Amino acid sequence: MKVYRLAEAKGLDALEAAQVDDAPLGARDVRVEMRAWSLNYRDLGIPAGGYPRNDKLQRDPPLVPLSDGAGEVLEVGAEVSRFKPGDRVATCFFQDWDGGEVGEAGMRSALGGGIDGVLAERVVLGENGLVHLPSHLSLEQGACLPCAAVTAWQALTRGPLTAGDAILTLGTGGVSVFALQLAKAHGARVLITSSSDAKLERARALGADDTINYRTHPAWETRARELTGGTGVDNVMEVGGAGTLEKSLASTRIGGTVSLIGVLTGPGAPNPSTLLALFNRITIRGIYVGSRAMFEAMNRALEVNRIEPVIDRSFAFEELGEIRAAYEYLRSGAHFGKVVIARS
Amino acid sequence: MKVYRLAEAKGLDALEAAQVDDAPLGARDVRVEMRAWSLNYRDLGIPAGGYPRNDKLQRDPPLVPLSDGAGEVLEVGAEVSRFKPGDRVATCFFQDWDGGEVGEAGMRSALGGGIDGVLAERVVLGENGLVHLPSHLSLEQGACLPCAAVTAWQALTRGPLTAGDAILTLGTGGVSVFALQLAKAHGARVLITSSSDAKLERARALGADDTINYRTHPAWETRARELTGGTGVDNVMEVGGAGTLEKSLASTRIGGTVSLIGVLTGPGAPNPSTLLALFNRITIRGIYVGSRAMFEAMNRALEVNRIEPVIDRSFAFEELGEIRAAYEYLRSGAHFGKVVIARS
Amino acid sequence: MKVYRLAEAKGLDALEAAQVDDAPLGARDVRVEMRAWSLNYRDLGIPAGGYPRNDKLQRDPPLVPLSDGAGEVLEVGAEVSRFKPGDRVATCFFQDWDGGEVGEAGMRSALGGGIDGVLAERVVLGENGLVHLPSHLSLEQGACLPCAAVTAWQALTRGPLTAGDAILTLGTGGVSVFALQLAKAHGARVLITSSSDAKLERARALGADDTINYRTHPAWETRARELTGGTGVDNVMEVGGAGTLEKSLASTRIGGTVSLIGVLTGPGAPNPSTLLALFNRITIRGIYVGSRAMFEAMNRALEVNRIEPVIDRSFAFEELGEIRAAYEYLRSGAHFGKVVIARS
Amino acid sequence: MKVYRLAEAKGLDALEAAQVDDAPLGARDVRVEMRAWSLNYRDLGIPAGGYPRNDKLQRDPPLVPLSDGAGEVLEVGAEVSRFKPGDRVATCFFQDWDGGEVGEAGMRSALGGGIDGVLAERVVLGENGLVHLPSHLSLEQGACLPCAAVTAWQALTRGPLTAGDAILTLGTGGVSVFALQLAKAHGARVLITSSSDAKLERARALGADDTINYRTHPAWETRARELTGGTGVDNVMEVGGAGTLEKSLASTRIGGTVSLIGVLTGPGAPNPSTLLALFNRITIRGIYVGSRAMFEAMNRALEVNRIEPVIDRSFAFEELGEIRAAYEYLRSGAHFGKVVIARS
Repeated sequence: MKVYRLAEAKGLDALEAAQVDDAPLGARDVRVEMRAWSLNYRDLGIPAGGYPRNDKLQRDPPLVPLSDGAGEVLEVGAEVSRFKPGDRVATCFFQDWDGGEVGEAGMRSALGGGIDGVLAERVVLGENGLVHLPSHLSLEQGACLPCAAVTAWQALTRGPLTAGDAILTLGTGGVSVFALQLAKAHGARVLITSSSDAKLERARALGADDTINYRTHPAWETRARELTGGTGVDNVMEVGGAGTLEKSLASTRIGGTVSLIGVLTGPGAPNPSTLLALFNRITIRGIYVGSRAMFEAMNRALEVNRIEPVIDRSFAFEELGEIRAAYEYLRSGAHFGKVVIARS
Repeated sequence: MKVYRLAEAKGLDALEAAQVDDAPLGARDVRVEMRAWSLNYRDLGIPAGGYPRNDKLQRDPPLVPLSDGAGEVLEVGAEVSRFKPGDRVATCFFQDWDGGEVGEAGMRSALGGGIDGVLAERVVLGENGLVHLPSHLSLEQGACLPCAAVTAWQALTRGPLTAGDAILTLGTGGVSVFALQLAKAHGARVLITSSSDAKLERARALGADDTINYRTHPAWETRARELTGGTGVDNVMEVGGAGTLEKSLASTRIGGTVSLIGVLTGPGAPNPSTLLALFNRITIRGIYVGSRAMFEAMNRALEVNRIEPVIDRSFAFEELGEIRAAYEYLRSGAHFGKVVIARS
Repeated sequence: MKVYRLAEAKGLDALEAAQVDDAPLGARDVRVEMRAWSLNYRDLGIPAGGYPRNDKLQRDPPLVPLSDGAGEVLEVGAEVSRFKPGDRVATCFFQDWDGGEVGEAGMRSALGGGIDGVLAERVVLGENGLVHLPSHLSLEQGACLPCAAVTAWQALTRGPLTAGDAILTLGTGGVSVFALQLAKAHGARVLITSSSDAKLERARALGADDTINYRTHPAWETRARELTGGTGVDNVMEVGGAGTLEKSLASTRIGGTVSLIGVLTGPGAPNPSTLLALFNRITIRGIYVGSRAMFEAMNRALEVNRIEPVIDRSFAFEELGEIRAAYEYLRSGAHFGKVVIARS
Repeated sequence: MKVYRLAEAKGLDALEAAQVDDAPLGARDVRVEMRAWSLNYRDLGIPAGGYPRNDKLQRDPPLVPLSDGAGEVLEVGAEVSRFKPGDRVATCFFQDWDGGEVGEAGMRSALGGGIDGVLAERVVLGENGLVHLPSHLSLEQGACLPCAAVTAWQALTRGPLTAGDAILTLGTGGVSVFALQLAKAHGARVLITSSSDAKLERARALGADDTINYRTHPAWETRARELTGGTGVDNVMEVGGAGTLEKSLASTRIGGTVSLIGVLTGPGAPNPSTLLALFNRITIRGIYVGSRAMFEAMNRALEVNRIEPVIDRSFAFEELGEIRAAYEYLRSGAHFGKVVIARS
């Protein structure tokens, strides 16, 4: 079967196609015929030797990339109880985090990071590393969920979230658009930023209550406070890192939360006044995707509220050039929502 | 000015109209010109000597009835900072429960129970005993909120509530219809019961996902489990008391919650097997309206989600006979949503 | 090897000794040489056909009894990572509840109830069904923990618990004495009831702040309120069921919790006024032992605070008559703390 | 009566004594004869124009300094219900934060910051700005509680805290020593750092389980992990700010908490890798003293557990030179626990 892998830690040039034998199937394993995948910002850093995180969480190459995929169950091991052939499934970002608290071993079990990912025609995963897809979603849509949607879900629901809360989400990438959709499903008020009025228009069509063009309003934190009557927002989906953290803190109400999700602007050194902002009783929560239980709870919410992931563009699995084009398109930042790879 | 009061504890016959002087205004007080009121089940028990609750929470007659009202601010005391003349306000059920935990004093401060209520042309209340109305609501709509809507809000949000949760609400009275609307605003799945297909049809129009006619399905708890794939619901809005508690427990998932709100069917003795159901790790939470902070949070949710209270019928404030008719109509159970009294 | 089992559902007379072959060892299994066991009230009901709970949670006979035991690891399967030969371990009450939420399958996995228990010379359990013993405990002490101590731990810590909280624990059986010790370790104030002044004296020696002889003070709920300045306690360890629930509710502060742990007095019908008490914003939480994660957290607490289980009396494993005597002694209610069975 | 005040924002030299009339007593006010005070690090920054925090939280001079004091009630206003003459009381850091969430107004109500403090012979405060002292404490001991002890209490109890948790507290100043005492009262394991073996010895005498001399072990974060079996601690009492935050994060377990309490080492710029540590699902909580409800809950804990504040040294209220000496002594860092000012 065909598989893609990063042969060396020297960037996307090291991505190559290969033919390998199918893996053996253990008693608690599930073999999945993969049909679709999606890319995340994390996937841009991994070819170069690591997303800027704790290095120990990424294995040395060669490495099969990508955490996110969906497909159909081909066969199941003798002790598998949760799946049967024909089931439509998506992969769990962490293969070893069912629910409750996660430990060191769970943190090392990220697909396409600590262990091989899923950019292959068929994969074998433990039954605890998969979830059933909501019935109203296509496989391409299902492939969008494992990293970005679960991240947004955890960032929104780890603390209390009630209808009427003001949620600020930065930009219109995968996590931000899911955060918009999921926050609206909870009856929250959503403020969203972008440098593009066209993207803000799309956000509004998806339900965003307030849009802020950060080119037009470089002091977007001031704008966020104004829009909330001077109070500040309840929770910020902070995907930017050092370059935006100070403004995110300044956008947040006394006692509010900044959900630290990503470091798109690079790790960098936070501004010296960053710490002072915390005296407003603000909580910064480090969010790193989530457990299988969170994924399943989110799927229930998607199903009840008929939410569909927003796919910006889909690239063909069969050609190495297409795969590279998908990565490059994500890197360009031109997308709104998710970038997908699919088998024809 | 005109005021209604219960002269003795011998039922609705003791309700009479009177002319009294306006109360003096203290430094932290607000005088409100009342425009609309609403009735709650509790108001049916009070004329007869008490809603079947801890007696000490109800004062001896004469007593001005009703906790729920809305109007316009006429004047404010010298130290009042939250209101100004002309503001549209609603009354807080508890006059002395701002937020956080409530104590004995707070529990005794219920309008129309522990202290005089608001069925009068003008009332004087402390500024902590009022909230601003959401801007999209009329005064009649605002008068529906203090008891029933805040009760439903607390029952839904006191524990964690996320989109996709299954909420079971019993009947189509004031609390149940608010619970339906607020649960839908949070992206939950709502199951609702009634003995009337017509009322269930109206519930469906308000967003109910599943309806159960408990005449057709006397084993409605079994139906609730079936509808949730055998799992049971996450939270039951239990308004019935001893007559329904056992079925409510049987409808609830392992680890779920029954929010005990009322005892419409009378206190009675729960079935002997009631306690056993708790071994499914079920929590029964006693819910008794809520704090001013909850009311304000709910109003924010109503505003963001443009939710309007459902008024079944409105009676005229001016005539004692109309007031009595309003009480009788509520007692008949024919209503769907709220029964209102309004000044013309 | 020797094993005890209940041959039929007709009481303790059906308990018999047998010789059986050792079970095979799966890849994720652990074989344990058992050295000590302890009895719980639940074990008194099971021989007669079921502890008064949801029947489906108990398997038909023949059934090896007992959930609680401790011993040494003899051998481990190829994929076991958490244990090695020689490790000192205790059994988990639920074999299939690691952490987070529990479902139907987990609820059916109780040793000596839904599946065979551990009253045997050697047992084979999955590695997720065992915990390491705290280093300062003997195997007999360790055998006291799985049901009673984990139950007390969950009842105390499932909601917020802070130093200074008032905890009321009923009687001096296994759960109550653990609750006393664990609550004191959290800096709480402990009130404890008994019909025996001698037992109350022992409770005081273990740290109880206030003791109530319920013979001398039949209105022990009034006494509990007096002792807390009229406020009521924060959390009641309710082991009695219908016979004590009303008084437990009356002992509880506004907004407090009753942890419903057992039905020692029989299921029965709660008093009609039981429901009314809930309007004091009281929460009744059904507590049914707990997860492996809770067991491990508790063991950490036992170790840091050098807490030792209180063993009342120990019976010999080798003789069927001794086993029966242990059951009878527990039934007599003469004990303080735990009744143990041990190999010589 | 005598009062001390900061005449200008130019450091301790601007501290002067004055004679002023007693303030009038409002209907909800309490007049207190002050007997003792204590200093906090915050008090060192305020004379120079502000503790390095959000400036708007500090009023312009002249300003009476200090938030922490204790004394006896002299007289109460007509509507005061919680106090009577003769009661022993301590001041609340925030005069306008009863419980629940705090807002902008509450944040501006800090004694000796946003409003005049209490370094005077007599003060008049609203009844919501005072608490009763635990009966086992002297007035000097009671004066130690308002800022440092409530801060430590909130830092420990805002998230879940259970016996056996590992708490790391930095240094041996007021907050750290209270954190040590309160964490031990909750059955936690306490790790504490200092540059002085003598101070570490005193900490051990107060119950510290593990001590780390950060001169001997500059990599104290590595030592903290070793001491917790490689896991890391559950909660860090972070009083240092930019100079220690990175090490505090590295000391914390996956999913743990850093309670950001102070910026003793100056605000500064956190290390670039600070953000990355958050991907271990770490929460940073900004802690800023606490509410009156927290203070009262803590007092209950102090009373049940007979905890006494540790007073390092006491200075005389009567002499300006002594007051200045108290400030200088605190600044020297030679103290262990609290620095007190008292009337003879």
